[in-house]
Amino acid sequence: MSKKLTSRAENFSAWYNELVKSADLAENSAVRGCMVIKPYGFAIWELIKDQLDKMFKETGHQNAYFPIFVPKSLFEAEEKNAEGFAKECAVVTHYRLKTDPENKSKLIVDPEAKLEEELIVRPTSEAIIWNTYKGWVQSYRDLPLLINQWANVVRWEMRTRLFLRTAEFLWQEGDTAHATKQEAIDEAKTMHQVYATFAQDWMAMPVIKGYKSDSERFAGAEETFTIEALMQDGKALQAGTSHYLGQNFAKAFDVKFQAAEGGEEYVWGTSWGVSTRLMGALIMTHSDDDGLVLPPKLAPYQVVIIPFLHKKNTEQNELLLAKSHEIKKDLEKFGIRVQIDTDVNKRPGFKFAAYELKGYPVRLVVGPRDLENNQVEIARRDTKEKSLQNIDGIGQYLHNLLAQMQESIFNKAVSFRNKHITEVSTFDEFKEVLDTKGGFILAHWDGTEQTEEKIKELTKATIRCIPNDAKIEEGLCVYSGKKSSKKVLFAKAY
Amino acid sequence: MSKKLTSRAENFSAWYNELVKSADLAENSAVRGCMVIKPYGFAIWELIKDQLDKMFKETGHQNAYFPIFVPKSLFEAEEKNAEGFAKECAVVTHYRLKTDPENKSKLIVDPEAKLEEELIVRPTSEAIIWNTYKGWVQSYRDLPLLINQWANVVRWEMRTRLFLRTAEFLWQEGDTAHATKQEAIDEAKTMHQVYATFAQDWMAMPVIKGYKSDSERFAGAEETFTIEALMQDGKALQAGTSHYLGQNFAKAFDVKFQAAEGGEEYVWGTSWGVSTRLMGALIMTHSDDDGLVLPPKLAPYQVVIIPFLHKKNTEQNELLLAKSHEIKKDLEKFGIRVQIDTDVNKRPGFKFAAYELKGYPVRLVVGPRDLENNQVEIARRDTKEKSLQNIDGIGQYLHNLLAQMQESIFNKAVSFRNKHITEVSTFDEFKEVLDTKGGFILAHWDGTEQTEEKIKELTKATIRCIPNDAKIEEGLCVYSGKKSSKKVLFAKAY
Repeated sequence: MSKKLTSRAENFSAWYNELVKSADLAENSAVRGCMVIKPYGFAIWELIKDQLDKMFKETGHQNAYFPIFVPKSLFEAEEKNAEGFAKECAVVTHYRLKTDPENKSKLIVDPEAKLEEELIVRPTSEAIIWNTYKGWVQSYRDLPLLINQWANVVRWEMRTRLFLRTAEFLWQEGDTAHATKQEAIDEAKTMHQVYATFAQDWMAMPVIKGYKSDSERFAGAEETFTIEALMQDGKALQAGTSHYLGQNFAKAFDVKFQAAEGGEEYVWGTSWGVSTRLMGALIMTHSDDDGLVLPPKLAPYQVVIIPFLHKKNTEQNELLLAKSHEIKKDLEKFGIRVQIDTDVNKRPGFKFAAYELKGYPVRLVVGPRDLENNQVEIARRDTKEKSLQNIDGIGQYLHNLLAQMQESIFNKAVSFRNKHITEVSTFDEFKEVLDTKGGFILAHWDGTEQTEEKIKELTKATIRCIPNDAKIEEGLCVYSGKKSSKKVLFAKAY
Repeated sequence: MSKKLTSRAENFSAWYNELVKSADLAENSAVRGCMVIKPYGFAIWELIKDQLDKMFKETGHQNAYFPIFVPKSLFEAEEKNAEGFAKECAVVTHYRLKTDPENKSKLIVDPEAKLEEELIVRPTSEAIIWNTYKGWVQSYRDLPLLINQWANVVRWEMRTRLFLRTAEFLWQEGDTAHATKQEAIDEAKTMHQVYATFAQDWMAMPVIKGYKSDSERFAGAEETFTIEALMQDGKALQAGTSHYLGQNFAKAFDVKFQAAEGGEEYVWGTSWGVSTRLMGALIMTHSDDDGLVLPPKLAPYQVVIIPFLHKKNTEQNELLLAKSHEIKKDLEKFGIRVQIDTDVNKRPGFKFAAYELKGYPVRLVVGPRDLENNQVEIARRDTKEKSLQNIDGIGQYLHNLLAQMQESIFNKAVSFRNKHITEVSTFDEFKEVLDTKGGFILAHWDGTEQTEEKIKELTKATIRCIPNDAKIEEGLCVYSGKKSSKKVLFAKAY
């Protein structure tokens, strides 16, 4: 806390890494690429998880749990999926250790305990889940299956960054099975919308809804719907995806059902997920050079009350603490999450900086003179504005203020995002915008994988999505000059 | 559902397996020893988890997340712990698959992607957590660390049974660090009491609190506190343990702190956990030959409303459904979890059996004649008692009934358990009780590991715990005839 963060302007990436660590969100572990999520970071994740879980249940889903391991033979059954993940799989080959005969205090892998079939630590669970669904589905009466699981997954990434790309991460994976194609498509779209709603209403993070190009689609899906957010450094971040799987997994795992009209058919599927990556998105959307900025709905504590306690003045301290608890009670009546800082050693300036770093939305200071005047000092984390407020009605006031702040943080992010969507019509413009301004670029594209690949090679920008609300308009591909019917969304991305 | 369960008297073990599967709680998966927890089973686990989580937070703990993998060098650092788990470790040795050159549709482990150091899939997390704590603790001001994590762990058990012993299971693991020995002991005891309270007040399962003998202690602990429950077949089940770790892990991972009085000291630790094993305990404590019996607090749905719908009579069906929804609303005002069965095809008898199998605490039937009389039929799952109740005030009535049932289910279990605690004074008695009546046996023991081992060898009974409330009394060891100061608790156990 003594050292200031590197500024975003100076080095965004260093700022991010320092912030994640100094705000006690997460840190690297002794296991390459795996993170430790610290209590304060995990408390934010719990708020994210609880709300998403509620939204999943409200849309008819139930939670379940499937094994962490996938036998290799199941893993390879859906070929595209297997191919997509094969290069980043952690593989369990043995099930026992034994004492090293050459050094009794050490252990070695027991060569006699080799598994007959290797087990893949799940990078995603479609294979094990669809293999299970085979036993659950006989008739149309067994459908739909609307199931979600909260779990850890492992993808052996070579370059990792806290929350954004880690070898192990936490996520949820919805896996649903349906009797008709239309129902599966509707489900994938419903969950796409649930993610968009959550991002906007809870994370205060505007997102663009669209679908992926062929090359960016999930391995094993027919269509991938995505929500794309924009970070403050002008790079895009894919925040959640919902996949319409067609009958790919049903065919790979032979999941058929007796249709209502008679006859046997393959089941239609979807899968959809968001992960602890959302933590990275949340941080990079709102935070500033002083630390974390949290939308109040996702702040573990929304208000910190700091009474000006003196090391020795116990009588006055008692009055200040009593008043603080009284205020806390009032705030809690409005469902506000409150912490009181009872420390008597640290200086106020030090405390203020620490709570700013951690992104507490509101700081409420109670000083001896405030007691006389029946008022407190309120400081907003997002705008840094301070004001004096009467203690009477402080709960109602802060209840309203937190709602306003949630909206204001969202509006600020929308305004930034909107300023960073640029429509271009030439490739020179495309490159210039990317180099100078960054952000999303809307440009015509001829629809071929070759052009997409070439643009990526030349600029590092990828097609983030074909937006749902893209206008149908005649135009020419920004790279090839061939005909195009709508502009798609490009950006450099996390 | 068409087939009745094997009765408990006939074959308790078959009854258990059939019940777990047919009540849709869990099933075996394609991965040896790993289970799939089905949505209905998982909903019970979620209720368990939510309540425990609340109790952990109320006692000052925060959640965090630590990696699933433990590098071998860390794993072996605390020698007793490593030795205790070495024989059941799943080991990751490679991080990539590649296409089988001999069969392009298959994958093989890429021999070039061998890890320099093997990774153990955590059987428990003390090693990785204490290695992390080393970085978090410098001074007494950093203590205590009161952290819990909800996670999956893997222990490669040879004989597995759904919920009771599975290669992968879900659990929580509290890991705390303290400045003084007394504080660590107090913490271990506090969590021991939290587990006991949860078992009794929520699971309606009486438990005996005590501590483990040396040979049954957790590998790496100085003292293991346990709660021991009794199943209906007379076997004991260890339902939760809380370990005082002394400075064992602090020394193994070099976790020291500057004491308030000056000087550097090793930190004192605890760890404590319960797992999906509690599901097995819950099932075997209360259920009967017709299926699951759930204490209302842990029932995903506490009341099922079954209107007598006719396949064709749409007008009457509408009235019945309207009334059902009205009743549901009334019940929900009291926080009761309610489901309405709107199926028009299945016969009532079939439905009744299905809800009994799944352990819905109360069945509420609404028939056409009931509408006229403004009454409904209530059936309790635990006692099978039926009664007619006026619809006015039904919410309040069921609210009270569910509370009564929670108590009554607990009292029944207490009565069974108390009848199955037998004090014996000779080894012949010991063996006879074990063979005929089963249950817990209180007997004098000379305190030696040899005697304990010998009794286990001869009878398969183990010391479940030395009860907290054991009377200090002079006596002679039931096996060796040597002096003993208190009776300890023996049983055959899961």
